[in-house]
Amino acid sequence: MSFSERLLRIARQQRSWLCVGLDPDLDQIPAALKAGRGMRAMLEFNRQIIDATHDLVCAYKLNSAFYEALGPQGLEILKETREHIPGEIPVILDAKRGDIANTARKYAQAAFEVYECDAVTVNPYLGFDSIEPFLSYRNHGLFLLCRTSNPGARDLQDLKCGNQKLFEVVARKSRDWKAQSGGEIGLVVGATYPDELRIVREIVTEEMFILVPGVGTQKGDLKKAVCSAANSQGERAIISVSRGVLYASNEEDFAQAARREAQRIRDEIHRYRKGSAS
Amino acid sequence: MSFSERLLRIARQQRSWLCVGLDPDLDQIPAALKAGRGMRAMLEFNRQIIDATHDLVCAYKLNSAFYEALGPQGLEILKETREHIPGEIPVILDAKRGDIANTARKYAQAAFEVYECDAVTVNPYLGFDSIEPFLSYRNHGLFLLCRTSNPGARDLQDLKCGNQKLFEVVARKSRDWKAQSGGEIGLVVGATYPDELRIVREIVTEEMFILVPGVGTQKGDLKKAVCSAANSQGERAIISVSRGVLYASNEEDFAQAARREAQRIRDEIHRYRKGSAS
Repeated sequence: MSFSERLLRIARQQRSWLCVGLDPDLDQIPAALKAGRGMRAMLEFNRQIIDATHDLVCAYKLNSAFYEALGPQGLEILKETREHIPGEIPVILDAKRGDIANTARKYAQAAFEVYECDAVTVNPYLGFDSIEPFLSYRNHGLFLLCRTSNPGARDLQDLKCGNQKLFEVVARKSRDWKAQSGGEIGLVVGATYPDELRIVREIVTEEMFILVPGVGTQKGDLKKAVCSAANSQGERAIISVSRGVLYASNEEDFAQAARREAQRIRDEIHRYRKGSAS
Repeated sequence: MSFSERLLRIARQQRSWLCVGLDPDLDQIPAALKAGRGMRAMLEFNRQIIDATHDLVCAYKLNSAFYEALGPQGLEILKETREHIPGEIPVILDAKRGDIANTARKYAQAAFEVYECDAVTVNPYLGFDSIEPFLSYRNHGLFLLCRTSNPGARDLQDLKCGNQKLFEVVARKSRDWKAQSGGEIGLVVGATYPDELRIVREIVTEEMFILVPGVGTQKGDLKKAVCSAANSQGERAIISVSRGVLYASNEEDFAQAARREAQRIRDEIHRYRKGSAS
């Protein structure tokens, strides 16, 4: 079954378009969990978050940087975290890679073979041949950065290229690359830019997935994000929340608090989706 | 001493503007070296290459993907490879990272603290706030991707933004960001595009470093690359060669062959530099 089909199936089954981002930070993990565990507390934290939320999400997103910052041992934790996620739930490696073809092949190998993730985020700046190695893995997906959620996104992504902005060119090219290659290409657009989200959804086709970070700590408006990013069926907009769920509580009840927060966001998305589909 | 000062000092001292890229591939390592070593053969290969070339280079470049593709153990090899490089020779982590600020901080931590590299390659698509965390490390450098060496570079980097192309905008912005921040920003421009190299050198200031991959296997013309990328003193163009040096021989004499090839390229660069400075 293709990545898209799997993602769609679990989203419908769990009535959830929420993706929980597993960006664990040792500094923010409850002290009781850290005691005697050292770095491995991150793995225990992730496991408890996964156990508490896996029936409420359509995907998990692993932010590679948070594991890489801990050195080789951090990558072991990434691997074990991925292994703990139930097989039916797609896992997106948020690595924002982008390199020339022979190197991109190595990044694809790391994401899809070593860490067995189902999709990866990729930077479009190097062009089509830099994303091709990821597309050559059947049943896997990629999300190209289109409009990122940070303030600096404007520096390049808003440049006018003829009568459109750079992020619009990226959206159009991604649509065309998807059509030409038959590959599983989605886009990343930040919730902090709802107008741009709407523009991107108008450019791409109904079946393209848009991964939307920036709700929560980054203060993107959830209602606007869902209504702007979803297709006419109110689907295929994946709302990714990391810190807002992970650190709903800094105490020992962190997993239950994360569950409550995930449930709240999932249900809120569901209400807004209906609105957008009506 | 700043990254630029260190790089300039070693380049002048060794009369070398050659950077050797350590992108070791288990499939291309001599069979005799692999016997009984498994993955660790990569480390032994790197060590012998470093021992054979360290007096001929101004820097080493570690291509992160080649280590990541081997999982956590590959990152151990990256770490040990870096530790084997003599302290006076700057090490560039070729990771092409790019993410929003709180994540970019983690990537900077990995590159500069965990793997103790001196500089890192960064993708500019996310804008200034995504590179700031790297600049906050004093005495470290970054190289922003400007015009990459692959054929697909044209897809986005050649887009016309008003009266200039996207890669020219990146060159101008990098120059301005460097001036405003006082940070150590250089650029990456592929040898496969000598005309674009010349344009970029004209845009940026004399003291900006340009890292030039694409000579060798990718067939960039060395003479054109040096003459186009060097400043008016014939300096600050770093020519990066990976496969051309690493696999000069596939036999047991690989290290001596790598040394001969590194020496040949270093001397050739030196001849062309004089031409460009005259």
